[in-house]
Amino acid sequence: MKKKAVVLLSGGLDSSTCLAIAKAEGFDPLAVTFDYGQRHRVELEAARRVADAASVPLMTVRFDMRLWGGSALTSDRIDVPSAAEAHGGIPVTYVPARNLIFLSFGVSYAETVEARDLYIGVNSLDYSGYPDCRPDFISSFSRTAQLGTRAVDDGWTFQIHAPLQNLRKNEIIRRGLDLGVDYSLTHSCYDPLPDGMPCERCESCYLRTRAFEELGLTDPLLEKKRMKLGKKA
Amino acid sequence: MKKKAVVLLSGGLDSSTCLAIAKAEGFDPLAVTFDYGQRHRVELEAARRVADAASVPLMTVRFDMRLWGGSALTSDRIDVPSAAEAHGGIPVTYVPARNLIFLSFGVSYAETVEARDLYIGVNSLDYSGYPDCRPDFISSFSRTAQLGTRAVDDGWTFQIHAPLQNLRKNEIIRRGLDLGVDYSLTHSCYDPLPDGMPCERCESCYLRTRAFEELGLTDPLLEKKRMKLGKKA
Repeated sequence: MKKKAVVLLSGGLDSSTCLAIAKAEGFDPLAVTFDYGQRHRVELEAARRVADAASVPLMTVRFDMRLWGGSALTSDRIDVPSAAEAHGGIPVTYVPARNLIFLSFGVSYAETVEARDLYIGVNSLDYSGYPDCRPDFISSFSRTAQLGTRAVDDGWTFQIHAPLQNLRKNEIIRRGLDLGVDYSLTHSCYDPLPDGMPCERCESCYLRTRAFEELGLTDPLLEKKRMKLGKKA
Repeated sequence: MKKKAVVLLSGGLDSSTCLAIAKAEGFDPLAVTFDYGQRHRVELEAARRVADAASVPLMTVRFDMRLWGGSALTSDRIDVPSAAEAHGGIPVTYVPARNLIFLSFGVSYAETVEARDLYIGVNSLDYSGYPDCRPDFISSFSRTAQLGTRAVDDGWTFQIHAPLQNLRKNEIIRRGLDLGVDYSLTHSCYDPLPDGMPCERCESCYLRTRAFEELGLTDPLLEKKRMKLGKKA
């Protein structure tokens, strides 16, 4: 029997690739997604499509980060900037401690179902500068999870996998394509149009589009958008 | 102006004392409580009473740990054992990664409101052996919070306070009484009676009752229970 691994799945490009990697690394994945009051709530449908396409069960955890907001993604009073407006430092799309919360739920779920492995699709090369995507944070979290669970008493190791950590965005896509990921099912945009299609303005759209272009490819999601627009015109 | 501190408040004896300590240490506390599907949901009312008595705002974060259960406190299929039935090791009332999740929400809230201090009422002397109450876990979490938030880029320190960490339960009560905590407002029982009163069977009741007795006192909550029973009889 394959070993279970919990995989955090937002429905974005990175986490969808991460899910395929967990499978390729021989695990039986259990996906978790988070309905936290995000502006781009449409990503939840993407998580469902991606999990279904991979025949992986998906658990949705619900809570409301709009209680305190503090990010363009969880407050309607802060606009999502365009990639061109992005400045140095941590951008307003940063959601305080979001990955810390996601990982903590992942650990709870994993510990309960006796999975010792947890995957998260963070990367810190073509990223938005969020502190909770960096290797130092992930390795410190790993130690914290080890000390705060049964692992410490029972003598097994809680392993946090961040297989995309040191990959460029185009390398992530290349790896995903090799593993058969269908990126037309995913969603990355922070500020989607009313029909759920990418805005092509925000930094997340920018990083994604550029990476496909670097590979000489067109993002299949943009092809979908163009087709939709064509039908309307 | 006083500095803000986020205080995790379950409504139990420990966290209520912790709130009083945060105030005594000169902070302006913002309390957070968690409605996570706990069997002893009545503790949420206690958190409200305690916050009101201290004139502190209280935020309630809701999520459902019954999604995966795995604890007597979050699954109806696992009974709460009596203190006498408690064995060595981590008991079935342990909720996987609960404090990790609570602390993570606390960090998110604190970072958003620009509080650099977070209080949690864990202690590891008269406790149930939960790994997420121990000093090693708290100090590792502290480091993780530092690395995963704006603190690391902006050069300030995220401080996790666990002022009860090395106190015996009776010392906690003594400290709380000195600070004017009204323990009749609190709730500690894992498996409350239908009217919300303590069961006097579970380990949490046992540790609490014994600590009051060690001080030559009667738990004011038990006095309340006796009075209620007297009225009925």
